[in-house]
Amino acid sequence: MLHSLLIISLLFSLSNAAVQDFCVADLKGPQGPAGYSCKIASVVTADDFVFSGLRAAGNISSLIKAAVTPAFVEQYPGVNGLGLSAARLDLAPGGVIPLHTHPGASELLLVTQGIIEAGFISSANAVYVKTLKKGDLMVFPQGLLHFQINAGGVTAVGFPVFSSPSPGLQILDFALFANDLSTDLVSKTTFLDPALIKKLKSVLGGSG
Amino acid sequence: MLHSLLIISLLFSLSNAAVQDFCVADLKGPQGPAGYSCKIASVVTADDFVFSGLRAAGNISSLIKAAVTPAFVEQYPGVNGLGLSAARLDLAPGGVIPLHTHPGASELLLVTQGIIEAGFISSANAVYVKTLKKGDLMVFPQGLLHFQINAGGVTAVGFPVFSSPSPGLQILDFALFANDLSTDLVSKTTFLDPALIKKLKSVLGGSG
Amino acid sequence: MLHSLLIISLLFSLSNAAVQDFCVADLKGPQGPAGYSCKIASVVTADDFVFSGLRAAGNISSLIKAAVTPAFVEQYPGVNGLGLSAARLDLAPGGVIPLHTHPGASELLLVTQGIIEAGFISSANAVYVKTLKKGDLMVFPQGLLHFQINAGGVTAVGFPVFSSPSPGLQILDFALFANDLSTDLVSKTTFLDPALIKKLKSVLGGSG
Amino acid sequence: MLHSLLIISLLFSLSNAAVQDFCVADLKGPQGPAGYSCKIASVVTADDFVFSGLRAAGNISSLIKAAVTPAFVEQYPGVNGLGLSAARLDLAPGGVIPLHTHPGASELLLVTQGIIEAGFISSANAVYVKTLKKGDLMVFPQGLLHFQINAGGVTAVGFPVFSSPSPGLQILDFALFANDLSTDLVSKTTFLDPALIKKLKSVLGGSG
Amino acid sequence: MLHSLLIISLLFSLSNAAVQDFCVADLKGPQGPAGYSCKIASVVTADDFVFSGLRAAGNISSLIKAAVTPAFVEQYPGVNGLGLSAARLDLAPGGVIPLHTHPGASELLLVTQGIIEAGFISSANAVYVKTLKKGDLMVFPQGLLHFQINAGGVTAVGFPVFSSPSPGLQILDFALFANDLSTDLVSKTTFLDPALIKKLKSVLGGSG
Amino acid sequence: MLHSLLIISLLFSLSNAAVQDFCVADLKGPQGPAGYSCKIASVVTADDFVFSGLRAAGNISSLIKAAVTPAFVEQYPGVNGLGLSAARLDLAPGGVIPLHTHPGASELLLVTQGIIEAGFISSANAVYVKTLKKGDLMVFPQGLLHFQINAGGVTAVGFPVFSSPSPGLQILDFALFANDLSTDLVSKTTFLDPALIKKLKSVLGGSG
Repeated sequence: MLHSLLIISLLFSLSNAAVQDFCVADLKGPQGPAGYSCKIASVVTADDFVFSGLRAAGNISSLIKAAVTPAFVEQYPGVNGLGLSAARLDLAPGGVIPLHTHPGASELLLVTQGIIEAGFISSANAVYVKTLKKGDLMVFPQGLLHFQINAGGVTAVGFPVFSSPSPGLQILDFALFANDLSTDLVSKTTFLDPALIKKLKSVLGGSG
Repeated sequence: MLHSLLIISLLFSLSNAAVQDFCVADLKGPQGPAGYSCKIASVVTADDFVFSGLRAAGNISSLIKAAVTPAFVEQYPGVNGLGLSAARLDLAPGGVIPLHTHPGASELLLVTQGIIEAGFISSANAVYVKTLKKGDLMVFPQGLLHFQINAGGVTAVGFPVFSSPSPGLQILDFALFANDLSTDLVSKTTFLDPALIKKLKSVLGGSG
Repeated sequence: MLHSLLIISLLFSLSNAAVQDFCVADLKGPQGPAGYSCKIASVVTADDFVFSGLRAAGNISSLIKAAVTPAFVEQYPGVNGLGLSAARLDLAPGGVIPLHTHPGASELLLVTQGIIEAGFISSANAVYVKTLKKGDLMVFPQGLLHFQINAGGVTAVGFPVFSSPSPGLQILDFALFANDLSTDLVSKTTFLDPALIKKLKSVLGGSG
Repeated sequence: MLHSLLIISLLFSLSNAAVQDFCVADLKGPQGPAGYSCKIASVVTADDFVFSGLRAAGNISSLIKAAVTPAFVEQYPGVNGLGLSAARLDLAPGGVIPLHTHPGASELLLVTQGIIEAGFISSANAVYVKTLKKGDLMVFPQGLLHFQINAGGVTAVGFPVFSSPSPGLQILDFALFANDLSTDLVSKTTFLDPALIKKLKSVLGGSG
Repeated sequence: MLHSLLIISLLFSLSNAAVQDFCVADLKGPQGPAGYSCKIASVVTADDFVFSGLRAAGNISSLIKAAVTPAFVEQYPGVNGLGLSAARLDLAPGGVIPLHTHPGASELLLVTQGIIEAGFISSANAVYVKTLKKGDLMVFPQGLLHFQINAGGVTAVGFPVFSSPSPGLQILDFALFANDLSTDLVSKTTFLDPALIKKLKSVLGGSG
Repeated sequence: MLHSLLIISLLFSLSNAAVQDFCVADLKGPQGPAGYSCKIASVVTADDFVFSGLRAAGNISSLIKAAVTPAFVEQYPGVNGLGLSAARLDLAPGGVIPLHTHPGASELLLVTQGIIEAGFISSANAVYVKTLKKGDLMVFPQGLLHFQINAGGVTAVGFPVFSSPSPGLQILDFALFANDLSTDLVSKTTFLDPALIKKLKSVLGGSG
């Protein structure tokens, strides 16, 4: 039991020191290098810290047989300024998350269903590949090319978590073939044949 | 197809620039404020980036009816320097992860089974509590008191991920009652009754 | 003496590079994860960098026999972005600063009058306690529970300095008993008796 | 050739995660401790990432026989948040960049023409001076006094690059003699003779 | 003239505070997440801060008609801990620096000779390409694919500077085709034809 | 009272996660860019976190009539990695802390006795000067020239606190005149008369 009381004025004199415990993103406010502006603390509720958008599988593409659903700061404003975000990967049998990088974060992948073969390639061109089961973690250092594929006969699910609210995502095939970077420049800088590039551009919606 | 070749010397001249892609902890080496020393890159393998210690449930305590299994840098050296680590929570029916803080990291909790009621308390003494289902995320800002309890009739499982390889963990009951901080000091600084403190100390293994 | 003159145009061509020497907080402007927006440099004066609110003792509570007066960024906008803030502790004989944490900063305490017994508890539940005299410094690592009590017969004064303009402050008794976190949840997550919790809540203004 | 197609919805579902790849400064928007607000990504073009203001020599002063042209964030908004900025030094024969510091960044100097003697002074008062030729790099640690002088018979050019978009620049002579810091205070804090200070103030436009 | 003298003891009492002005890498010492161990200050000389390895062009490959010469921390220990490093690009007519990323740093490119067409691709797959002349700067945000090609009839030279002593370098063609990542995995994760991949692997020295 | 017990195994399974709560410097171990190596946690005691070297006044110089006593990481290993350090200023009547910078930290000065006039000069050459009384705080942004002088008739005492364990200290007069930087270089880069420089060098122990 208390044998002494704390003065209420202590509570009040200190109460506004707490503002920077968190900084839930105001997605309409100005954004700076460190993230979005903060919502006013008085309108923040528990809902701001919870995200339910990863409960269900994303729409599995019939082509990559997979789906990626992000919970980055734009989808999940509560992570703003806290150095974390997440996503959900659904991989049907044969599903693939193609080679990609996160320019702004390292990734820690948790497998929650099925079997996933995952790997990354270092700056020294070394390859680190492992087959992961339910409950396994694999870490992918920031900015390196990596991939995940379904290595079992059933749907696999994984949750990547990132060391930034804005990890970014650069999917290699899209970066090369889904924009207007000229075929000439793609060819010169990848040494791929121009005819192949044009074919891939037409498939992926690129031009030039 | 390539219509030009890259010079092999380019590959070699640049190869040692890659060392700092990652810094797998050498747990026997010196540790500094930024983390452990790095294992030599040449002996790093894919196994260093994978952790399988969270596949199975921890030993559920009959008392808190829960288990916490860490995958911090000491258990999972591959996360050293990468700004991430993880853990696994197993909560039997009635299970509780008591009030605690992580002094060195924010936490993003992913619920993978069952129903978990979780909450945190801000510096302004505001309370943010939510009931989470499978697939839900909740973020707990760095250093604030928070808890998780099983809010369903079946075992619940969650995976907290942290914004540091060394998040730290300060469990309130242990901090107060499981060491040799004198009953007099605990009483003076918590306003709890000395007799109660002594009783709790005896239960939790504290002295003084 | 100068044997050559500097060109005035040099002065002007470089003058606007200086804006980020400092970023005095505009407390009405948007706030982001790194702090408040900056006041326009042209209206900043020496007064912005000085804070006189710690000259006098705070109002000593007859109950804790102590006062805490913050000089965080909200009180002292000049520290915005500079990684520092401060406070003043006044402890009458018998005075106590109850167990608390600063979720966002480490603390360096300078004792300027009297004798203060201070301590903190680590994540490993180790206890570090010392009796401090005038001129002594003690450092409390970020996020860990710590306390200060008057250990002499006369009023003691200390100045804690923090490694962030927004250290935050979570006082344990307030966090547990001065809000609407339900007695059931407090009991389940602290293992304290519900009747005791209700009593403490009534004393400290909590409900539920 | 592709033997499978990527689903377009994947592209769109992820597209807004990219916002924080960069944060081109909106110089009219609010500024915070981490830099300026970001321009809206949709209006950013390649021009934002390029700066041509260092193509030509700055106006060589007949007095210091040198020019400094900054490409800090105010001149070059594309570097906002990216941890880099630059400048151009032109030193005619006999030219000097007087002793100065950059309070907010380390500097890496690249010499592109002529011969430059450069040096810095450490906190331990040690002096590090070298004569640099075309293609040489020299690094000046953050905040330390340093200088560059033309050490050849022809115009020298160098490009300093900084570890911050806002390195700041404090030129010693200007700091001492080109403002209204009173002669008395300058004398007391530098131990220079008041008469000399007054003379230098009159030359450099200072008062007091 | 001085009208007062400074006490020599002041000099000595403060002299060891200067150690962390810089931290020249001891490449044989342990490395941690923040960089290499520091050489002992007493053996550091001006030579440690200067790098002359970029004076001359690198060996131009007859195939990419270009050379990349790094001045990262391994080559230039003086930049350790200072947040900067550099490199030199030599591009003969027709020369190309193929698509690559720096996982650990943003890049600021200074063109010192000739004409270079450079560009990068954002996470949103937007393309930012510009033709740069002597004296131009272009910034490439961290982790994004980018390239440089000679766009003039004469040899071009550029100096990229990086926001880290260890920027890393991942060249796309090498990452895909110059290691033992299996043709099957490359094909599945890039959607390139296995026959093409095998051909490229044989050219670039890859296997599998 | 507890109505449930926590399992002891929980305590042990988590105990080694706490290592990075703090990192008391092992001054004999390797030092890196982020600070010194950590002492082994098992030998750390409360004494490591306390520094009593600022209890008494430093040796007041008869010349500057002042003393500076540092409590940087070399004197106070407990602050390693915690982003804070301190010092003590003693200023007899007429005492002066001459113009200086801290290249690695911002400073927050607390006046504890007497009256101190303090000021700093910004990159824009603006001057910010104030007269401070007991209990006043003044903040000096990182890397800018600043000074403190006794502005009362009695001894003044102040405690500067820094935003880094290794703030560094560059005293202008020492940097210019107390080393072997040649008179010619000092003259060229400060525009002071060579004869004056030689005189000051002889007073302060410099050569060249």
